[in-house]
Amino acid sequence: MPSRKITEESLIRVIQRTVTSRGRVRLGIGDDAAVLKDGTVVTTDAYAEGVHFDLSYMSLRQVGERCACGAISDVTAMAAEPEAVFVSLALPGNAPCLTPEARRRADAGFKRHASGMKQQVRQLYSGIEDVCAEMGCEVAGGDIIVADQLLLALTAVGKTRSPRLRSGARPGDRLYVTGNLGSAEAGRILLADEVRSQRPVCRRQKRGKRPAGDWRLPLIRRHLRPVPRLAVMRELRRYFHGLIDTSDGLATDARHLSEMSGVRIVLEAEAIPIAPATKRFCVEHGFDPLDFVLEAGEDYELLSTSRHRLPSSVKDVKVTAIGSVEDGRGLFIERGGRAVPVTVSGYDHLRPNSSGKTCY
Amino acid sequence: MPSRKITEESLIRVIQRTVTSRGRVRLGIGDDAAVLKDGTVVTTDAYAEGVHFDLSYMSLRQVGERCACGAISDVTAMAAEPEAVFVSLALPGNAPCLTPEARRRADAGFKRHASGMKQQVRQLYSGIEDVCAEMGCEVAGGDIIVADQLLLALTAVGKTRSPRLRSGARPGDRLYVTGNLGSAEAGRILLADEVRSQRPVCRRQKRGKRPAGDWRLPLIRRHLRPVPRLAVMRELRRYFHGLIDTSDGLATDARHLSEMSGVRIVLEAEAIPIAPATKRFCVEHGFDPLDFVLEAGEDYELLSTSRHRLPSSVKDVKVTAIGSVEDGRGLFIERGGRAVPVTVSGYDHLRPNSSGKTCY
Repeated sequence: MPSRKITEESLIRVIQRTVTSRGRVRLGIGDDAAVLKDGTVVTTDAYAEGVHFDLSYMSLRQVGERCACGAISDVTAMAAEPEAVFVSLALPGNAPCLTPEARRRADAGFKRHASGMKQQVRQLYSGIEDVCAEMGCEVAGGDIIVADQLLLALTAVGKTRSPRLRSGARPGDRLYVTGNLGSAEAGRILLADEVRSQRPVCRRQKRGKRPAGDWRLPLIRRHLRPVPRLAVMRELRRYFHGLIDTSDGLATDARHLSEMSGVRIVLEAEAIPIAPATKRFCVEHGFDPLDFVLEAGEDYELLSTSRHRLPSSVKDVKVTAIGSVEDGRGLFIERGGRAVPVTVSGYDHLRPNSSGKTCY
Repeated sequence: MPSRKITEESLIRVIQRTVTSRGRVRLGIGDDAAVLKDGTVVTTDAYAEGVHFDLSYMSLRQVGERCACGAISDVTAMAAEPEAVFVSLALPGNAPCLTPEARRRADAGFKRHASGMKQQVRQLYSGIEDVCAEMGCEVAGGDIIVADQLLLALTAVGKTRSPRLRSGARPGDRLYVTGNLGSAEAGRILLADEVRSQRPVCRRQKRGKRPAGDWRLPLIRRHLRPVPRLAVMRELRRYFHGLIDTSDGLATDARHLSEMSGVRIVLEAEAIPIAPATKRFCVEHGFDPLDFVLEAGEDYELLSTSRHRLPSSVKDVKVTAIGSVEDGRGLFIERGGRAVPVTVSGYDHLRPNSSGKTCY
């Protein structure tokens, strides 16, 4: 059995040692996306049912939305304009070679949502299409195969004249983040809790299923439908030095900036923006809010560094200074006047989720 | 249960109705690859274990090679130069949420080949890297996730100033194909036969395992390691009108040319190039050679139309005129002086293989 201790980063190192650069691309493996010589930005992400999304509380349309948001966010995090999305889709349920167990899972997982394969495809693509419409890009190709498990691999392609990289942070910069952190992971845990406790599941986020004022709604919505920060990126891109999106949690993503830029980053604990609902969630679940947001991934907010003083809000999205970039190495956090190294890590796609509640 | 009668084409029509063009791309869904406005060519293909490849007779390195060849062939079939390959990789065996059955399969399938996840990743990427080295492009990014089944989704990106499309065939053109047809499918069936009959498996194509003169070797090699016809494309691209690669079988691929160009295509049965070994294979297996090559996919040869008389060989690759393009509609085949409609179809990724021997 492969060891559970293998991390995504160690596998990426294996890949980097196995492949060779031939000068065809400007920036290869290691950032949110690759950049070809002409400024074409390409990123690919895979999502599997039972690992990255859960059909017990998400519709196929929501799966499509969420996966498209993740891919487009990676293009946005290179300071690029998304142009096209490509979808490799593995659908279960139609292969004579399915194991009985795989077939049972496929049937159970799909019958709840759609009467046929065409309808499933329509729902998934409707979600992807909605996000593309909002972001001004389009679905331009893909592939469909039959497999044991529902799985999507999305490739997003964009354009930029001057990409912003993880390696762009400079000593003297301030560290900024858009929106709030931790909301998406709190929403995910709330939905998963509901499934386990057999309480009614807010599957489609229809009002009326919950009281409109339910404090949990914004968190759940944030998990089901993150928003790539394209509008903010467009306004602020000329001020950005280093740039990444918070897909793996603040600790991991800020560490990427620090390591790839060769700088010391000091987070300011008090400044990190956490929604009141997330704080309430943390109290109810016995989490320390700061530890929680350091580890919680998939908010898809922009984490950037800039020498300029950025506005506190752009296009109705909050922008918060949460730390500073200094000479040196490592990721630190200042809490009560003392800077200590950040030891927690964020979401690793090869390990259980930060909350320890894997694979709902 | 979804109906088994659903075809890949009917799902593509569902997708085309669901998504909207926003003028961001020059050519979207429906060809071998999409073309962005600046001539960037993008294609994505998914491959699942037990459906598109079989670890009982292929090493992981061979899986990598084969998948990379398929993706790069699609770029070549747009008359584009491949630049970069992106790999979304779903690896089994490390997820706490694996079903017992999925875990058993994952363990059984992988222990034969590698001692750990790192080694598996290294082997897969070595195969992809080898093909990229040969084709002058490079692996520039990817994603790794844990899933129930080994699955790869490869995206290949290339560049062209003047793409050649499936819709480019014109009445008066001749139809040409590179290499031989049917070899890859014959090789696949031979390997699968061996697995079922428990005879020693030629897993790594080492000489010595078989007599060097074994007539089956070239066929097996063609299945395990197809060759994207980049060198031929470079030499002849200026003469091509319509262009596609033979990934789904001559009948299906020629029909794509015919339908998308709005022309009638007449194949000449006697002219279709079939290797002597494939003819011998057909005799031994009771297949009609012509029916076999009409349906057999994944040769990844170039099927093109041209008004020019193309040379009979380019860079040691045979180029054969196998038919003509005329005014009208439909796909026909001339056999013994009579042109009859082609009724057989090729490989559909949602159905059992043409030989009826699915999912070895």
